[in-house]
Formats: sequence, structure tokens, C-alpha cells
Amino acid sequence: MRIVSAGQFQLKREVDYGSAEQNAIVKAIVSAVKNEGDAALLNYTEQLDGMKLAPESLRVTEEELRAAYEQVEPSFVSAISAAAENIRAYHSRQKRNSWMDLQPDGSILGQIIRPLKRVGVYVPGGKASYPSSVLMNVIPAQVAGVPEIVMVTPPATNGKAGIDPYILVAAAEAGVNEIYRVGGAQAIAALAYGTESIAPVDKICGPGNIYVALAKREVYGAVDIDSIAGPSEIAVLADDSADPAYVAADLLSQAEHDEMASAVLVTTSEAFANACRDEVQRQLAELPRREIAEASINSYGVILLVDSIEEGISVINQMAPEHFELIVEEPIAYLGLIENAGAIFLGPYSSEPVGDYFAGPNHIIPTNGTARYSSPVDVDDFIKKSSLIYYSKEALLTNGETIMELARREGLEGHARAIEIRMRKEGKAGNE
Amino acid sequence: MRIVSAGQFQLKREVDYGSAEQNAIVKAIVSAVKNEGDAALLNYTEQLDGMKLAPESLRVTEEELRAAYEQVEPSFVSAISAAAENIRAYHSRQKRNSWMDLQPDGSILGQIIRPLKRVGVYVPGGKASYPSSVLMNVIPAQVAGVPEIVMVTPPATNGKAGIDPYILVAAAEAGVNEIYRVGGAQAIAALAYGTESIAPVDKICGPGNIYVALAKREVYGAVDIDSIAGPSEIAVLADDSADPAYVAADLLSQAEHDEMASAVLVTTSEAFANACRDEVQRQLAELPRREIAEASINSYGVILLVDSIEEGISVINQMAPEHFELIVEEPIAYLGLIENAGAIFLGPYSSEPVGDYFAGPNHIIPTNGTARYSSPVDVDDFIKKSSLIYYSKEALLTNGETIMELARREGLEGHARAIEIRMRKEGKAGNE
Repeated sequence: MRIVSAGQFQLKREVDYGSAEQNAIVKAIVSAVKNEGDAALLNYTEQLDGMKLAPESLRVTEEELRAAYEQVEPSFVSAISAAAENIRAYHSRQKRNSWMDLQPDGSILGQIIRPLKRVGVYVPGGKASYPSSVLMNVIPAQVAGVPEIVMVTPPATNGKAGIDPYILVAAAEAGVNEIYRVGGAQAIAALAYGTESIAPVDKICGPGNIYVALAKREVYGAVDIDSIAGPSEIAVLADDSADPAYVAADLLSQAEHDEMASAVLVTTSEAFANACRDEVQRQLAELPRREIAEASINSYGVILLVDSIEEGISVINQMAPEHFELIVEEPIAYLGLIENAGAIFLGPYSSEPVGDYFAGPNHIIPTNGTARYSSPVDVDDFIKKSSLIYYSKEALLTNGETIMELARREGLEGHARAIEIRMRKEGKAGNE
Repeated sequence: MRIVSAGQFQLKREVDYGSAEQNAIVKAIVSAVKNEGDAALLNYTEQLDGMKLAPESLRVTEEELRAAYEQVEPSFVSAISAAAENIRAYHSRQKRNSWMDLQPDGSILGQIIRPLKRVGVYVPGGKASYPSSVLMNVIPAQVAGVPEIVMVTPPATNGKAGIDPYILVAAAEAGVNEIYRVGGAQAIAALAYGTESIAPVDKICGPGNIYVALAKREVYGAVDIDSIAGPSEIAVLADDSADPAYVAADLLSQAEHDEMASAVLVTTSEAFANACRDEVQRQLAELPRREIAEASINSYGVILLVDSIEEGISVINQMAPEHFELIVEEPIAYLGLIENAGAIFLGPYSSEPVGDYFAGPNHIIPTNGTARYSSPVDVDDFIKKSSLIYYSKEALLTNGETIMELARREGLEGHARAIEIRMRKEGKAGNE
């Protein structure tokens, strides 16, 4: 890991918008499923996932769900269930009520907050199975009150149409209502436009490969989509009081995700910097995902030396990292200075994996500097708001002239007349 | 206006993504301003707006702002100031606090809610001047606590670099901090990437022509942008108790916006439908913006007959209109049934222009069916959230085994080891 003075460290990486060929493939798949429904969906599932399915076997049955519980270790069931409980408790605190503001003139203004009606969650297939991501996408929607949460995931490619039982158990614990064994761009199109077997949703979320990401962009507008996550990032700001072995382990926990992942240490102490660098090397040697972590550390790992913790925080604010660990004496004293960070971990025991799996906050967090203006996934992502205006006759008569003046100033006489016609009829002539 | 039975009425219109040539022009402008800063910004302002400016004259001065107050009617100042006060009061009720959840084991979980730091608001130039839109974009940001709100608007093309005084007064009343006389794609690029004269922002909002819209799409990712509004829409659900003249006036108030605007009446009464149709014709004949309103009514105006108010609400929910007026006896009885509508106006005195200008709720509202999953502009659009995790030693030791089990199930040994190294050192060996 390079050790450098903090200068204009630039964390950003390019976003992959796919090749022209990939874009063309996705457009063709989306359009076919939109126009032909199940026929195209099943055709692409056979062609791309090697699985010939009948329409009635798309949906995962209750029996399969029950069987999944028999196929996993009981300790996994308790672990995922405990995690789900914590995630549900944390997100429940984000729920908001519709509100009204009652005016003395009898008018009522308000904001109505409602859950989305139907949400689709994409869960990737392939080698890596991430039950924790199922919890993190589904539970905020469920807490928001979304009555229909639909999961899609590619059928296994071993000739059987089964789905990873760990994913199924996570889905059941999180509260998914329907599960379909379809994946790829065709699954996204089915969620957006609906087919004979799958009713359309209002929003699609969850990670996927480049085809899934492009399909989400393609259907955006017909439905809402979540934002596309970049490679994982961790930044640690530590002083001499921190344990280099803890910090090195936390840096590596993000580096092992992806060769594009980024791990940054910011520190006031050169001795600590050296100790961390050595610890990273030592721990790296024994890591099963060593190749990935090493590539990540070599390309996007860096140790930045700063003169003070305040300067370190200012470097962090520039960076706006996805995960930020502050491991200094009395970290709470600096909390008010942190402007940009997706998730903030304070003190030596708040290791980043605590947040990835268990504590309760969401692990889907803005990457690539976007924590400057965006937020971790939460209940707000699954609600919509309507303004409410109930204007009284008195309010209209009192304020009508003012409203007409503003409308006429903008040259919108029709707007003014909608007010004026009421004022005339109610005995208070406007503008005469 | 056609009168038809409610069937599969489809309100959607195509979104304009610009021609290939327009896209190429925008890309060139954005890239030039990104790379060359003020030089390119001033060059395009001369080339496209016909205004040769020096860098030091880009920013509108305090004197110009004061002079603007002298150039407008005092009644306008009181009207815009009263509107600003209502909008501020309504949006103030949306503010949320950061929160903490203190656990018995000493852990703290929380969510930190902060305003964005710097926001840019685009205000179109040209013939139509909309001071009300300045209020609606700026005040939510100001209420959110955004410390730096920057407005950009094209210089007048009459050879003078002056800006419409009504816009300047609205900006001052709303609380804008900096104003620059630049417009078009070049202004969007300056806000996104910064130049020597204009510091970069975190989010850009406000309406503009196709070049402005394409430039916002182009810079998205470097900064956040608001969503692109489609043509205005109104849907009225009325029964016999409503006054056809009021309803016709409200329909026309939206139709006069734009030839693409949509005005839909849903009613249980054929007699009322006929009366409204005749009223629309009568009022249309005397409307200054008759040509626009007539084109809108002919293309996107319709009267739908339904059997019951409940069926009418179901038609509205399918449509998800931007503005929805419910003018029936006891409208509150149906409020719970309304699932999809950007803004809901109840009863005969809640004429839509009340909301456009004055009552307090925002007039920037989802169009084109997107009220199914999105919301009017509000304070939430100008904040960001960070998760907070302060885990205690006790919490880590209690839950460490569970966290490691979940990490190892996902094949992420590095995640497990970040927990295990702490458990070992703190005297509770993991996995031995």
C-alpha cells in the first residue's frame, strides 16, 4: 500500500454504460418481453439460462420454500432471522406519518405518505449468493408497507430450476410475497411491463450484471429504479490509539469484494501508517480471496498522511466514501464535522462487516462520491407523497386577488379566471 | 371535448430525448466548459445568447437586486412575499431531525440528516417569466438548510445583460445567495464542474429547454439532478354537486400551459358532462391563450363517464395525474381510496391555481404517470442521510459469531476475520 501525503486524492472510477452491442441486445430483449410477454420471457430463459420452463412453473411454490428451510443449517436460519429483526427495527424508526396543517380559516394543507403498491427485487444468480442483500432490499420496502414484494432470480444452470436455498430462506425471513425463477434483462422487462404470469411493478431494485443494469436504465420511466452501485469503498481515519491489525482487517474486508474496490487509510501518524501497511501485507497473505484483495489494494488502496484529525475529516468530506470508519480517541467529538459519508462507523468495535450483515442500517450505500448528495437505501425509497389542499371559501375570498395578480404577472389569464369565476359567484367580484 | 366511457384511457406521452444533433451539441458544450472553464462559458454566452460579458460581470450585484425592487409594482412584492411565506411554512413542516437509537448494550445506531451544501437552480429566460417557479425550487432547499443556493438564468438578449426584475425579486424573497447571468447547457456545465467564477454545486434543479434538459442528463453523476417534468396535467372527478363553470375554468387553466397539456374530467353524470363540455367551449372563446388551450383540449382533453365515484377514483389511480381535483359531496370520504396523484385538491374552492401560486405545497409535481412512484419536490430533495453505527465491545462480543457465520456463508472470509481478530484480542476466541 502506497503511503502519500494527502493532496488531491481522487477516488472516482468510470461507470460502465455497456458496449453498443450490449445495449442493442438489452433493447431487443426488453422490447420482445414488452410485446410478447411470457412467450419471450420463457424463450430467453431457455436461450440464456439454459432452462426450459412452462409458464406455470415460473413461480416458486410454497413447498419449495418449506424445503429450503430443510436444506440449510439451523444456525443459518437463526442468524439470518436475527439480522432481519435488527434491520427491521432500524428501518421501522424511519417511518413517517401523513400529516395535516389545519388553518384558522378552515383550510387544510397536508402531505399524504403512502407505500408503493408493488416492488420488484432482483437477486443475481451465479456462484456468489448474497442472502444479506435480499434482506437489505426487501425489508425497507416491507417496513414502508409495500403490500406486494416480488423477487426474481435466475434459475440454477445445472439443469434443475432450483434456487439457492439460502436465498429462499432469506426471502421468506425478509417477507417476500412472490418469487419467480427468471433473471437477466428479460426478468427486468417482465417486472416493468408485466407478462401473463408476472404483474408489473412500480419500482425495481437490486444489483445485477451489466445486462441487468442496462435493462433497468432502459425501463426507467415506465417504473422507478434504484441507483446503480459502483465498486465498494472503505475509508478509515485513525490515530495512534487504533489497533493496526483491526484497521488492516477492515481495509481488506472491502478489498476482497472486487478488484475495483477501494480501501483508503487516512492517519495522523507515520508510525501507524507503516504498521498498517505491514499488517495489510501480513493478513493479505492468508486471505482466501487474496488475488482479488491484492489487485484492489494495489490499484485503489492508499494511505494518506495528514497533520490533524480535522484535516483528515476534510479529506474524507472530499472523498464522500461509501463506508467511513473513525477510529480515534473520542470519535463523537468529530461527528459534527463529517459532511459526506454514506455510513459512519465510530470507534474500534464498529467494524464495517457489523454494518454489512447485522447491526440494522442498510448496506446499500452511495458509492463513487455520490454520498455528497444521496443516501443509503431506506424506507423513503419505497414511499411516495401527495400534497393535499382543501381550501375553504373564506381562504379563497381572502387570497383570491393575490393569486390572480401572480397568475396575470406570468401571463396565465386562464389561471386567474379559475379564481375570478369563483369570487364573482361567491359575491366578491375580482378585478372589476 | 370528447365524452367517452371510461375504458383503458392512456395519458402517457413520449419523453423528448432530443435529436442526435442536439445531443452532440450539448456534449460539446459540456465538455468545453468542463475543460476550459470561464473561457468556454463566456464564449458560448456570446455565441448563443448574443451577450459579450467579462468574468467579473457574470454575477448579479446587490445594486441590481435593489434596483429590481424599484422596477416592479409594490403589489407584486407583497404578493410574492405572501406566497413565499406560505410555501416556507408548508415546507418547514417537512423538516426531520437526525435521530439516535440507544441500545442497552451501549451501542448507538442512528441516521444523520444534513442539507446538501450547494444547490444550483436554473431559471429559463425567454418571453415567459415565472417568478413562482423560483419560489418553488428555492424555498425547499432553503428550508432544508442548504447554505449556498445559486441561481443561473440567461442574460436578456436585447443587448443589455439585465435580468427580468420580477425574477430577481422572487429570487431575493426566496433566499437565493448568488445569481449568475448565464443560461443554456453552458450554465448547467458550469454548475456541475465549476469554473473560475462559479463554484460547483451538489445538485441542479429547475426547468429549461431541450438543451438544458440534455445537459442535466449529461452531468448527472457528477452532481444530482431533479427529474425532468413533462407537460402539465389536470384530472377532475366531479359529481352533480359541482359547478360546471368552476370545473371548466380549472380544466382550461392547465390546458393554457402547453399544447401537450392534458385536461381530463371524470364524472358520474352525463348531464354534468354535457354542461362542462359547453362551458369549456364558452370560456375557451374568450381566453387570451385560446390557441394553445384549444390544441391541448382537442388532443389531450377528454370527459370520461363512470358509474360511481369509486370507479372514478379507480380511473384516477390508473392515470396517476399531476393535479387531481375531487369536487363531490363530502370529498374527504374518498381520500383514503386515492392511491396515485401528485397533488390532491378537495372541494369547490381548491382551484388548482391556488396550489400553483399560493397555498404552500410545491407546484413541481410528478407528471406522465410517475406519481405512482414519485413525489412533489420537497425538503427531502435537498437533504442527504448518513447511517451511524457506534458498536460497543459488548455488542461485538455478543453478536460476533452470528456476523461471522453470515459472512462465511457468502464466501467473504475477510469480512469474518475483521470480526474474529477483535474477538480473539478481546478474549473471546471466534471459531476455534
